[in-house]
Amino acid sequence: MSYITSTQERHIDILDIPALEAKVAANMEKGAFGYLSGAAEDELVLKANPLAFNHKLIAPRVLQDIENPDLTTEFLGLKLSAPIIAVPIAAHGLVHEHAELDTAQGVADAGTIFSLSTYGNATVDDVAKIAPESPKFFQLYMSKDDNFNRWILDKAVKGGYKAIILTADSTLGGYREADIVNNFTFPNVMHNLEEWSKLSSDGETGSGEGIAAIYAKAKQALSLKDIAFIKDYTKLPVFVKGVQSPKDVEPLIEAGVDGIWVSNHGGRQLDGGPASFDVLADIAKVVNKRVPIVFDSGVRRGQHIFKALASGADVVGIGRPMLWGLNLGGSQGVTDVFDHFKKELMITMQLAGTHNVAEIKATELLDAK
Amino acid sequence: MSYITSTQERHIDILDIPALEAKVAANMEKGAFGYLSGAAEDELVLKANPLAFNHKLIAPRVLQDIENPDLTTEFLGLKLSAPIIAVPIAAHGLVHEHAELDTAQGVADAGTIFSLSTYGNATVDDVAKIAPESPKFFQLYMSKDDNFNRWILDKAVKGGYKAIILTADSTLGGYREADIVNNFTFPNVMHNLEEWSKLSSDGETGSGEGIAAIYAKAKQALSLKDIAFIKDYTKLPVFVKGVQSPKDVEPLIEAGVDGIWVSNHGGRQLDGGPASFDVLADIAKVVNKRVPIVFDSGVRRGQHIFKALASGADVVGIGRPMLWGLNLGGSQGVTDVFDHFKKELMITMQLAGTHNVAEIKATELLDAK
Amino acid sequence: MSYITSTQERHIDILDIPALEAKVAANMEKGAFGYLSGAAEDELVLKANPLAFNHKLIAPRVLQDIENPDLTTEFLGLKLSAPIIAVPIAAHGLVHEHAELDTAQGVADAGTIFSLSTYGNATVDDVAKIAPESPKFFQLYMSKDDNFNRWILDKAVKGGYKAIILTADSTLGGYREADIVNNFTFPNVMHNLEEWSKLSSDGETGSGEGIAAIYAKAKQALSLKDIAFIKDYTKLPVFVKGVQSPKDVEPLIEAGVDGIWVSNHGGRQLDGGPASFDVLADIAKVVNKRVPIVFDSGVRRGQHIFKALASGADVVGIGRPMLWGLNLGGSQGVTDVFDHFKKELMITMQLAGTHNVAEIKATELLDAK
Amino acid sequence: MSYITSTQERHIDILDIPALEAKVAANMEKGAFGYLSGAAEDELVLKANPLAFNHKLIAPRVLQDIENPDLTTEFLGLKLSAPIIAVPIAAHGLVHEHAELDTAQGVADAGTIFSLSTYGNATVDDVAKIAPESPKFFQLYMSKDDNFNRWILDKAVKGGYKAIILTADSTLGGYREADIVNNFTFPNVMHNLEEWSKLSSDGETGSGEGIAAIYAKAKQALSLKDIAFIKDYTKLPVFVKGVQSPKDVEPLIEAGVDGIWVSNHGGRQLDGGPASFDVLADIAKVVNKRVPIVFDSGVRRGQHIFKALASGADVVGIGRPMLWGLNLGGSQGVTDVFDHFKKELMITMQLAGTHNVAEIKATELLDAK
Repeated sequence: MSYITSTQERHIDILDIPALEAKVAANMEKGAFGYLSGAAEDELVLKANPLAFNHKLIAPRVLQDIENPDLTTEFLGLKLSAPIIAVPIAAHGLVHEHAELDTAQGVADAGTIFSLSTYGNATVDDVAKIAPESPKFFQLYMSKDDNFNRWILDKAVKGGYKAIILTADSTLGGYREADIVNNFTFPNVMHNLEEWSKLSSDGETGSGEGIAAIYAKAKQALSLKDIAFIKDYTKLPVFVKGVQSPKDVEPLIEAGVDGIWVSNHGGRQLDGGPASFDVLADIAKVVNKRVPIVFDSGVRRGQHIFKALASGADVVGIGRPMLWGLNLGGSQGVTDVFDHFKKELMITMQLAGTHNVAEIKATELLDAK
Repeated sequence: MSYITSTQERHIDILDIPALEAKVAANMEKGAFGYLSGAAEDELVLKANPLAFNHKLIAPRVLQDIENPDLTTEFLGLKLSAPIIAVPIAAHGLVHEHAELDTAQGVADAGTIFSLSTYGNATVDDVAKIAPESPKFFQLYMSKDDNFNRWILDKAVKGGYKAIILTADSTLGGYREADIVNNFTFPNVMHNLEEWSKLSSDGETGSGEGIAAIYAKAKQALSLKDIAFIKDYTKLPVFVKGVQSPKDVEPLIEAGVDGIWVSNHGGRQLDGGPASFDVLADIAKVVNKRVPIVFDSGVRRGQHIFKALASGADVVGIGRPMLWGLNLGGSQGVTDVFDHFKKELMITMQLAGTHNVAEIKATELLDAK
Repeated sequence: MSYITSTQERHIDILDIPALEAKVAANMEKGAFGYLSGAAEDELVLKANPLAFNHKLIAPRVLQDIENPDLTTEFLGLKLSAPIIAVPIAAHGLVHEHAELDTAQGVADAGTIFSLSTYGNATVDDVAKIAPESPKFFQLYMSKDDNFNRWILDKAVKGGYKAIILTADSTLGGYREADIVNNFTFPNVMHNLEEWSKLSSDGETGSGEGIAAIYAKAKQALSLKDIAFIKDYTKLPVFVKGVQSPKDVEPLIEAGVDGIWVSNHGGRQLDGGPASFDVLADIAKVVNKRVPIVFDSGVRRGQHIFKALASGADVVGIGRPMLWGLNLGGSQGVTDVFDHFKKELMITMQLAGTHNVAEIKATELLDAK
Repeated sequence: MSYITSTQERHIDILDIPALEAKVAANMEKGAFGYLSGAAEDELVLKANPLAFNHKLIAPRVLQDIENPDLTTEFLGLKLSAPIIAVPIAAHGLVHEHAELDTAQGVADAGTIFSLSTYGNATVDDVAKIAPESPKFFQLYMSKDDNFNRWILDKAVKGGYKAIILTADSTLGGYREADIVNNFTFPNVMHNLEEWSKLSSDGETGSGEGIAAIYAKAKQALSLKDIAFIKDYTKLPVFVKGVQSPKDVEPLIEAGVDGIWVSNHGGRQLDGGPASFDVLADIAKVVNKRVPIVFDSGVRRGQHIFKALASGADVVGIGRPMLWGLNLGGSQGVTDVFDHFKKELMITMQLAGTHNVAEIKATELLDAK
């Protein structure tokens, strides 16, 4: 490919996530950075996501006899170093030549779960080989062709992935203006598509297309029945990602979902919707602990993770910041980003007066005035 | 006329409406652009109109089995390609030499309703001849002279216009500072006034005057009785445009109105009033589906149309953006603007989980936090 | 005096009040302009005053059969051209050589009430001679010396002033930073003080002192008893100016006050208090029409006057804008400012659907969303 | 030391606190100023603290017969010139070579309480000798080594300190980005640490370390039992500083605390929590006058002090502004800062209609609209 990207493998200094993003912006091709950092329409949801955490406040408890609060947690029976996991994102090759192989390694080194996208620049098989003892989830963008769906789910099962994430908020692309202005298309092959292309002769590799075109070729008419199909076929837990309405909870649970993933895709899909954090507590109330909840969108500080956990999330997903770390430092940079969030979360826990994740979850936040 | 305006007839690229407006601003005489883009006093309502849509949020429903949502709708028995119509605006000749003739053609090509203003730069007769099979409404600024009112309503009936819009919010001009600063007067003849001028010898053509002077010559003392007069005289449905108070609904329905047009004239009349979207739901509650509701003022995104429909509107009107399209591309530019709104609305429908307009209307929006 | 000020006597063009103020700023000595335009501490109240009108919105009523709405009103039995009066302000000589003599003439020509301050640059006697048939109020800053109080109240009675305004919010000066930065002192003699100085040999003329020093020499320990003293001594109606708390209403009415003047002194006294408009409705509710209400502070638009009347005020006072007119056009400029407010109020009345001041007062405003 | 700091001893002019801070910013080494002026993470709490006072408004009462309102108050049986005291801050040597010795003198001259930090640049013994008749509090950062705690508490008792402040919100350092960017470490010896270092050979002096490192060496696992330990050991009243949650009140009172100190450490510890003023009233409600309340964080105006007192505080602490005065004028500058706050508070009291501190406390504030 003529697309030049990072080859860095090193420790990175992280002051904070906005400063990290600024470094990456200066380091990348404009179109690719615009694709990753941008969002839909007026980017109202993109901007609202991190600000929404300010709607709830942590009233610290004092004299709670705390030293070295415990960040570890268990999720789906997996032991994690912290309640922070990797969200699935397409095309890590945009930021680093080792793409998802490096990210998966960095996340494994951080002691938590990596999530691979169907549209990654590394195959399901190759990612499975990275730190094989470390837990991984596979995110399915369903194809209109069920042969593809079965083929790739087979690989996920074979590769030891621990859960399937069905992304439900992207049956077509949000109206992302940065991509239009930059005339952005993916410079790299999406290797799962390429492999299938060779088997099926459909010629689709992802390369040279925009995200809207790729989504358009996937299955639009996703329905509750797809949950049962994936569960039956894989015998793996299925998470539905992109839930924003409390009204979706009951139908999803009836349809057999194993976990609710509260997300608005980082503001990249429907502009004019709520900030993801603003709907979390209402969704958690309906879920009522029947299934676990993953939360993402807008997390930029350790205190955001604290607030999401206190609002009903069981673990919190990190997206763009992880890619910034990948760009600047490869797998080590990814680990550094997770460590940065852990450090901030630890400080927040200590100052808030919470010994462990269970106490975070039991914390009652204040409404902002 | 020495006034030079656009003669373009072509497809236009539309990123978004603000970008479109910026192109037009660079393309037009300052006074004419100021007249069209400006509004009353501190322009509080102008600014509040598009921002008000952020007071309500769309919580997307997932896994709803949707592909290619259906935008078509029926309004007053007319089949429309989408729930988006043209609002009446004076003097399209300011932006294009073909004035309303091009706009009417572009709106017809978009498969929806064109609305002609009394103060257009094309006559009721001439506009009637454009795409005669396509539906058109006629907006009446009543004259103090009932002979004029009868004369022009006769033309609307004869021309096959489907409804009469009685604009009720403009019995004099709002205090529009841009027009004062630019010393703006209309450079072109308003052809309906000119025709009547020849018959009545009143010498009024609109040319060389400002909007306040023109409004001042029209009838100020509009009353509920005018609805009956127009209905009886034309046998056409009558919409009252400019409704902003729920208290007006009952008297209007008692007076026989056939539709409520919720609008604040794009902020050009009363500053210090509400954003139009902010009063829509309360008005719709009182209307309670007894008559149809048209909504306009501040619509700049497909999601705004979705939110207005979900708040009680049956169709949504587009004003300034349509003229920006006319300026840059003639009738084709007008069609392009409607297609742009349709595209954004389609994306919003798909991502929101709605199959058709009826499901949009049944959507319960969230309050913003 | 070495202080050079305006000698203009002419019609002035007024686009809006901020534009008018900007012209004056370019036309005046910095210290004097800072004194007039500035306010206390962080100027929070100064900024909040005009913005507070946006907390309430006018929902226009349509088809109300209105032409040429009637702005006239009656107040204390006085016929006024509009419900707009002049507030008392010290030292009009800062903006024009004819000082209060010109302002009084301009206000008389506008058909409404002039209010003279104790600290004016013209005497009670001289102002009384201006347009003697026109109504005037006299504002008393009480002295620690009751001989002064009786002497000046005698003049007010003799001069035919229609009411006494007891300013209660200024028993010392607010902390006005512009005056400190500019080291501002009054350049001109306050003629009432000078006259008394000659009689009493106290040597006080106001010239060369700041407002804080002048207030400090006045009576601090104002009490409810002062109302009875002024009423008994003058047999004139007494207004207490500077009311901001509903809790003050009952004691004031019990003490015999003839009118409540809701004002925060244009933000010049207590920073950290409410915007004047924000407390008006609550105060009016307690007053319950037992005595009339004057409102001032922050009025910059005709719609502000409308909203104040709809919130319980009987008349609305204009302060700084009147002085800007005086500076640029002498008495004619003052009249022009009142005419500008009348024009905006008339437009608002017509578009809001109100025939007269009684209908404005009966209007129910909407809460802003 | 190579660190050069102020040696000024003089009266200073104070327009307002932001202007004072700007002068100091231009006068100091960047790292030291960043340490003092900066706060945690996004500095949300730093910014929110002073703005929160705008959530409550003072509705002035008029005609209350007031002259020269009385600012004096009694606190823990100590007569104070005003309800304004000094908060404990580490390392005054950053701003002035005389460090806490000058501050203590300036506070004594202002007639109120000085608070010495464990991490001061002057010893408990030396500060005790400054104006020995003036009241002082000692703030304890507990050590992991109880020998240190007993040694320094002995000195506080011997030095006649009137109360012990147990800071509970700083068991580790907030994430302060300015200190990271500037690579800030303390240039000066903390003399209490240095003295102990000589006795215990632990080698700790504070010099050359950042605040996070110093906090890390202190005791993290503070608990309610520490209150009893300090009380029993010193027989002095114990205040717990850093309370932000009403839920902490009951346990603290049960544990024997003698006073609640509402503070968020000027925003330097937990970002993502409430503004200190926003929680004061709720905390005071639970305290219900059983123990006295000190309030700090964000106080920049006399009206802030008024509002804190009206919301339940018995005295209000001043932090950064005091150091700005110390930097620019030594002990006299410190006194000047207190005098400035007293002047603004006096003006607020007079204009609000309150004769004394008891009446401030009885004032019912309005909610901002």
